[in-house]
Amino acid sequence: MFSAIFDKRHPQSGARPGTLVIPKEAPAPRIHMIRYSAEDMTATEVNHVEELKVAFDNQAVTWIDIQGYGDKSLMQSIGDLFELHPLLLEDVVNIPQRPKTEAYGDQLLTIVRMVRVERPGEIDMEQVSIVLCKNYVLTFQERYGDVLDPVRRRIRSGKGVIRQHRADFLAYTIADTIIDGYYPVLEQIGEHLIGLEDIVVTDPTPELLIELNQIKNRLINLRRGIWPQREAVNAMVRGDHPAICPEVRIYLRDTYDHCVQTSEVTEMYREMVTGLMNTYLSSIANRTNEVMKVLTIMASIFIPLTFLAGIYGMNFEHMPELHVEWAYPAVWITMLGTAVGMLTYFWRKGWISFGTSPKSSRTRRKVESD
Amino acid sequence: MFSAIFDKRHPQSGARPGTLVIPKEAPAPRIHMIRYSAEDMTATEVNHVEELKVAFDNQAVTWIDIQGYGDKSLMQSIGDLFELHPLLLEDVVNIPQRPKTEAYGDQLLTIVRMVRVERPGEIDMEQVSIVLCKNYVLTFQERYGDVLDPVRRRIRSGKGVIRQHRADFLAYTIADTIIDGYYPVLEQIGEHLIGLEDIVVTDPTPELLIELNQIKNRLINLRRGIWPQREAVNAMVRGDHPAICPEVRIYLRDTYDHCVQTSEVTEMYREMVTGLMNTYLSSIANRTNEVMKVLTIMASIFIPLTFLAGIYGMNFEHMPELHVEWAYPAVWITMLGTAVGMLTYFWRKGWISFGTSPKSSRTRRKVESD
Amino acid sequence: MFSAIFDKRHPQSGARPGTLVIPKEAPAPRIHMIRYSAEDMTATEVNHVEELKVAFDNQAVTWIDIQGYGDKSLMQSIGDLFELHPLLLEDVVNIPQRPKTEAYGDQLLTIVRMVRVERPGEIDMEQVSIVLCKNYVLTFQERYGDVLDPVRRRIRSGKGVIRQHRADFLAYTIADTIIDGYYPVLEQIGEHLIGLEDIVVTDPTPELLIELNQIKNRLINLRRGIWPQREAVNAMVRGDHPAICPEVRIYLRDTYDHCVQTSEVTEMYREMVTGLMNTYLSSIANRTNEVMKVLTIMASIFIPLTFLAGIYGMNFEHMPELHVEWAYPAVWITMLGTAVGMLTYFWRKGWISFGTSPKSSRTRRKVESD
Amino acid sequence: MFSAIFDKRHPQSGARPGTLVIPKEAPAPRIHMIRYSAEDMTATEVNHVEELKVAFDNQAVTWIDIQGYGDKSLMQSIGDLFELHPLLLEDVVNIPQRPKTEAYGDQLLTIVRMVRVERPGEIDMEQVSIVLCKNYVLTFQERYGDVLDPVRRRIRSGKGVIRQHRADFLAYTIADTIIDGYYPVLEQIGEHLIGLEDIVVTDPTPELLIELNQIKNRLINLRRGIWPQREAVNAMVRGDHPAICPEVRIYLRDTYDHCVQTSEVTEMYREMVTGLMNTYLSSIANRTNEVMKVLTIMASIFIPLTFLAGIYGMNFEHMPELHVEWAYPAVWITMLGTAVGMLTYFWRKGWISFGTSPKSSRTRRKVESD
Amino acid sequence: MFSAIFDKRHPQSGARPGTLVIPKEAPAPRIHMIRYSAEDMTATEVNHVEELKVAFDNQAVTWIDIQGYGDKSLMQSIGDLFELHPLLLEDVVNIPQRPKTEAYGDQLLTIVRMVRVERPGEIDMEQVSIVLCKNYVLTFQERYGDVLDPVRRRIRSGKGVIRQHRADFLAYTIADTIIDGYYPVLEQIGEHLIGLEDIVVTDPTPELLIELNQIKNRLINLRRGIWPQREAVNAMVRGDHPAICPEVRIYLRDTYDHCVQTSEVTEMYREMVTGLMNTYLSSIANRTNEVMKVLTIMASIFIPLTFLAGIYGMNFEHMPELHVEWAYPAVWITMLGTAVGMLTYFWRKGWISFGTSPKSSRTRRKVESD
Repeated sequence: MFSAIFDKRHPQSGARPGTLVIPKEAPAPRIHMIRYSAEDMTATEVNHVEELKVAFDNQAVTWIDIQGYGDKSLMQSIGDLFELHPLLLEDVVNIPQRPKTEAYGDQLLTIVRMVRVERPGEIDMEQVSIVLCKNYVLTFQERYGDVLDPVRRRIRSGKGVIRQHRADFLAYTIADTIIDGYYPVLEQIGEHLIGLEDIVVTDPTPELLIELNQIKNRLINLRRGIWPQREAVNAMVRGDHPAICPEVRIYLRDTYDHCVQTSEVTEMYREMVTGLMNTYLSSIANRTNEVMKVLTIMASIFIPLTFLAGIYGMNFEHMPELHVEWAYPAVWITMLGTAVGMLTYFWRKGWISFGTSPKSSRTRRKVESD
Repeated sequence: MFSAIFDKRHPQSGARPGTLVIPKEAPAPRIHMIRYSAEDMTATEVNHVEELKVAFDNQAVTWIDIQGYGDKSLMQSIGDLFELHPLLLEDVVNIPQRPKTEAYGDQLLTIVRMVRVERPGEIDMEQVSIVLCKNYVLTFQERYGDVLDPVRRRIRSGKGVIRQHRADFLAYTIADTIIDGYYPVLEQIGEHLIGLEDIVVTDPTPELLIELNQIKNRLINLRRGIWPQREAVNAMVRGDHPAICPEVRIYLRDTYDHCVQTSEVTEMYREMVTGLMNTYLSSIANRTNEVMKVLTIMASIFIPLTFLAGIYGMNFEHMPELHVEWAYPAVWITMLGTAVGMLTYFWRKGWISFGTSPKSSRTRRKVESD
Repeated sequence: MFSAIFDKRHPQSGARPGTLVIPKEAPAPRIHMIRYSAEDMTATEVNHVEELKVAFDNQAVTWIDIQGYGDKSLMQSIGDLFELHPLLLEDVVNIPQRPKTEAYGDQLLTIVRMVRVERPGEIDMEQVSIVLCKNYVLTFQERYGDVLDPVRRRIRSGKGVIRQHRADFLAYTIADTIIDGYYPVLEQIGEHLIGLEDIVVTDPTPELLIELNQIKNRLINLRRGIWPQREAVNAMVRGDHPAICPEVRIYLRDTYDHCVQTSEVTEMYREMVTGLMNTYLSSIANRTNEVMKVLTIMASIFIPLTFLAGIYGMNFEHMPELHVEWAYPAVWITMLGTAVGMLTYFWRKGWISFGTSPKSSRTRRKVESD
Repeated sequence: MFSAIFDKRHPQSGARPGTLVIPKEAPAPRIHMIRYSAEDMTATEVNHVEELKVAFDNQAVTWIDIQGYGDKSLMQSIGDLFELHPLLLEDVVNIPQRPKTEAYGDQLLTIVRMVRVERPGEIDMEQVSIVLCKNYVLTFQERYGDVLDPVRRRIRSGKGVIRQHRADFLAYTIADTIIDGYYPVLEQIGEHLIGLEDIVVTDPTPELLIELNQIKNRLINLRRGIWPQREAVNAMVRGDHPAICPEVRIYLRDTYDHCVQTSEVTEMYREMVTGLMNTYLSSIANRTNEVMKVLTIMASIFIPLTFLAGIYGMNFEHMPELHVEWAYPAVWITMLGTAVGMLTYFWRKGWISFGTSPKSSRTRRKVESD
Repeated sequence: MFSAIFDKRHPQSGARPGTLVIPKEAPAPRIHMIRYSAEDMTATEVNHVEELKVAFDNQAVTWIDIQGYGDKSLMQSIGDLFELHPLLLEDVVNIPQRPKTEAYGDQLLTIVRMVRVERPGEIDMEQVSIVLCKNYVLTFQERYGDVLDPVRRRIRSGKGVIRQHRADFLAYTIADTIIDGYYPVLEQIGEHLIGLEDIVVTDPTPELLIELNQIKNRLINLRRGIWPQREAVNAMVRGDHPAICPEVRIYLRDTYDHCVQTSEVTEMYREMVTGLMNTYLSSIANRTNEVMKVLTIMASIFIPLTFLAGIYGMNFEHMPELHVEWAYPAVWITMLGTAVGMLTYFWRKGWISFGTSPKSSRTRRKVESD
């Protein structure tokens, strides 16, 4: 269950800075380019890096979306074309990086982590690097598929504000969409927690604790993405990079609010998981208590009776009771009396209940009235 | 029990900024307008948005209170009339937002969370957005009904300072009233905790732990409202927005104090809930201990006696004791002696008490003297 | 036990700012005035507010001490006479306020919390508001009686530095005296903790846990007074209010040190209470362990023996052992051997000790040598 | 297991500042010098301190690597040659120091901690002091052997950017390589944790807890190196020491990111160890519960039956049942009925399962579906 | 055990500032004066305060060391001679003060806490106040004896740098020596913790928990000295008091590093004590589990057998088995079969082991390989 958290990829010790470490399983890059202005819009699949040169044409905003990074020379030639700093390119390729915002000359790199729920209980995390320049946006994604289709639709439709704005608004829209993608993931975890809430009391198995630990680790993992994202977005809002105009900063303030909100929900869920774990432990203790009560009641009632029976099973020659006619029924009556006495004692202690126990009823009223 | 905390509404991923997401169950807006100056005061139910134009008349202060937001076009036309920024309107409608204070030109948006105890044990939380401009205040509420009636009465009565001041004092009064609404809610939780304090020791059932977890979650939820409110009010006090004059800032400092006080009480209650949970767990452990003692006492006394009885129930031919006349009473005396010996041993250990135990009496004195 | 912490008084929701909420049980104000200069000193009981006007005479320092606030109109007329800001008067009367220092024009309001041990185990907390102006100090106390008698004596004696200084030194002396009052209270709690330290191991009853929780809550409550006091005194030291001269700020730095020291001791005690609680829980676990051992030893020894006795209590016709003469003593020897074997096993495990156990002796040496 | 953490070396109390405390076991220094420029490169073993004077020749960058420090006079003469401040030399020799960056005139001292996994489960920590001046870099290592071979290879190969840059880039490369050395160490700990995850539930032995504590202590120890390293690297990035040019600061920003990332992973692992410890404790509780159930089931079934058998083992003369022919089979039937009744009761409670229990099945579905 | 922590001395409430509170048990002051310059050095026992006047002679540095403060008039006359501020003198005498650095005109007061291990397990804490002026240093110690002998030796020897410097270097040397005195104390605690590590698993007695609590309290107490010392030394490094020249500030930076290091070690030890406490609790739980297993195994094996024996101990007339010749051996075989079955069941569960258990072997391998 931990395996999702341990990320084994890391920069090779002592590697040249700017070295691109590309694992074998990285998918081959697919490049998709959208160019739009208020009036016009074109979308093309790009096969040759040279086609990307139109991005330098100031007339329109260009969004170049690169999914997959499994081709070192292609990545390098993109880096050369757009004059990306070697460290910027390294951050884009050498995954995972912490979410952050960093300025490289007139380019602004923002790294965020995109989450998607692929199957129930499986959260897919993917690094997205957004490079913003005056009139183009580059996005680098780890794998194919993303949550950005609504953005593409909005560009295509041509109605929204997006077509009226420049590249900075596009970058904002992409970051905002990715961050809003955390809500359904958190919601799913929330529903899972609701589902576990009762079971924790009624059926506390060790598997349940493992499950709770899994949720906790998932939340730790999400938090690792969300917390630095706060700072990254805040750096976009508060920074003074010329690529972002003041108007878009107001919009980014909203994105920052969502970052804060998701991080708060994550913390809240963590507190709840801790609460459920404590409830779990106390349920176990309660169970042991209950098991002990059954044992104690059974043993306390029958052990004295067995002793009594044992007494009259002795083979002494001189045991006058054995010859008394009413002795046997007397023993039975004594035994029943002892049993009833013990039962009454346990009932008084609240260990057994015949519908109404003198102790537990008061509480139950209390709890119900709430 | 968690359901109150998990808020499933969230911005749709990739939605256009400024998109108003209005759920079906949102109540239709009711608009109430109060206009007043030092001499005069009118209160009207508003049916057409155009009636609100009087708010731009500088002669009087106008308070426009919109309860419910279930009509997209109406909300949009109010936004158009008052030239609200699309993001401001989005924050107002797309509930829940974190409490915050944000400036949009000459308008100042403050979002707070209003709490009310509807039924015992049920806390109703509702977002209230306060838009302050030079001479009018807009308040947007999630649902009908609020805690602001005392404010309306004070405006009507005409005696207080409120009629002598401008819109900023009105905004302060509204925020202050909403924040003071936390006191009775916290008081109720406090009384609940007092009520549970004894039960935690005398009757620790699993239901009680669930109840404590509920209170804890409620406090977590309250805190989520209270903490950012501190910052929101502080931003009003320390900020430099021209809509709030220095005199009103002194009053807001008082509101800030109340925010701090409520947040402190919330933290204190959380510590107490944690304390009660620990007491609960230790009560369970104590109970198990008590159950074990009963079992151990019963078993330790009767198992050896039963063994003794078993000895003389054996059918060996050559058992000289069986033929001795005083053997039977001797066995009884041995048994009684053993039983008394065991009881003395347990009494010395403080496991059983006949009124006075040598161990527990010392402590009791100690505890009582305190 | 919580009741001391939950303060039910709070501002009425939606009340006019500056509203004085005076509970019925508030005692009627008693006004005591001390006027002094380096040469001269007079102390008077004040019955009419007009007598207080002498305070405006710059020749001497005036200390007006108002104990109790159960007379709204009197409080109002004092407020009018000294031109107190409505919010200042509200903070003075609407108890409890957080300790704080706030400037209102040339007046400086400092709110502190005075503690006194009235009876052992009962800590009395009372709000004291100190209003400092150029040449007078007003103190408002919640109830009659205080810890300020040493200050009065020092003024009367005329020997100390106090008579040579102005009103700011008087305000410092009052604040310092009140804060030094925390030391005996903390000392008492410390002694209580020492007293409980042994009992926690020797006699862990549920009542003890409740007592520990009480101490913890008392410390939480004290901390609520001490922490904001730090800031309040620091605001006097670092602030730039003209009513406090630089020389007195050096003295206040000393008071600030005491605030820090008391807050540190409070935190240390809280950690100790937590430590005692853990010891308590582990003592319970130890006890259960001990109980279990007794049960296990008794049962493990006698159950096999009883089984053996049961074997030869069977009534089979063909049981050759029954007819062997030495069978009965042989059974006894077997039984004794089994019992001795079990006892040896338990002694080896360290569960029972006859003076010296092979296991525990090593540790005991270790512990003693320390 | 703690021994790796407790470092017994510490400055002798009251020693003259600048005193070099060299333990006997410190290895004799080996000096290795690499001089390189864009065109040229030489590597030499240095036997006499005078040979190091070439470092003052501005034509090339010189890296002097001193491994081991077990020769006081040699260390002193190196210090004299390079005019190292006495405190700088003391920090280099008196190990361990906290990682830090400190300026001494035109020299910049950076102390980092190098980690290596020598054998599985054994982490070797070693202090490396990097002294950067305009055109040379001194590195002082505690012991022979390091992780810097890739750097030496890169200098030798002459292809990378390193040969084009000055000494500051070399210092950056060394620091970066050392910090990247934390990744494989953390990875190994991560894999260890994955391996323990199942065992914690299936086989919770006390040895396992000790093992978890060991990992925790190892993480605490790593953190002690990583946390101050963050500040040390940040001081290089943000500081204004002239020895580091702006371009290299951008590279160092990358190193800082790696510091943050490793510190985050360390914290995450600590949380996981805590999680595993809680799982461990709950597994123990579960085990006790399971043991109790077996005991309770066995005892609850057979104790009543034994009592019944005891009844008819009594030797009363007048026991009519004894003479009834079908009494014996009737007793057997009663006994079997009782046993089946008890078993049903326990099965209903979910204490025993014959493939399907009414209680546990629901949960299992739940857990599997996740 | 707490008694070492609770310090009962505290300023008398309402006392005149500058009041010297001298307890009766305070030892009479012994004054020792050392005067030195680069060439010369004299050490004298001082009997009359007037002898101290030579300190005002600028030619040499004077160190006046006052041990004990049990003579009010002497302390006062020293204060008068050196024109010490009343609050400075109060801080020196009214022990304990928090470690701090405070400027009084051209005098700089630094209060630190000196620790010494007098007997194993007993840490002696003593307040040392260092008053630094241009050319003299006053040190006030609580009791006779200190850790400063190495400093005195270094002054006497005349070789070190100390004789070349002014009073600020002397003050630095004293503070540095006192702070380095924490290392052996911490080391001793560290060794104690190593010693307890095994015992916590092998022999968890309640006394051990008390011992752990004692160590924890000792660490809390040490931390109370160490933490404010950090700030105090930092104030010397960063402050701008003219009595400390820039060169000495570099040396003090080193002292600050030691403060940070000792505080980190203290925190690390606290975490370890917490870890040991958890291990302790889990050992107790493990023990209970072990005890339970023995009971369960014994009871589960013999209770059914006893029942079987009980069956054939019944006295029914019509029990055909009793008359079958092979019945008795058959019962024995059944019994042995049952016992072996139970033992196999428990062995499978890993509750008992005959050298190799199918369960525990796997883990043991795992643990050993580490």
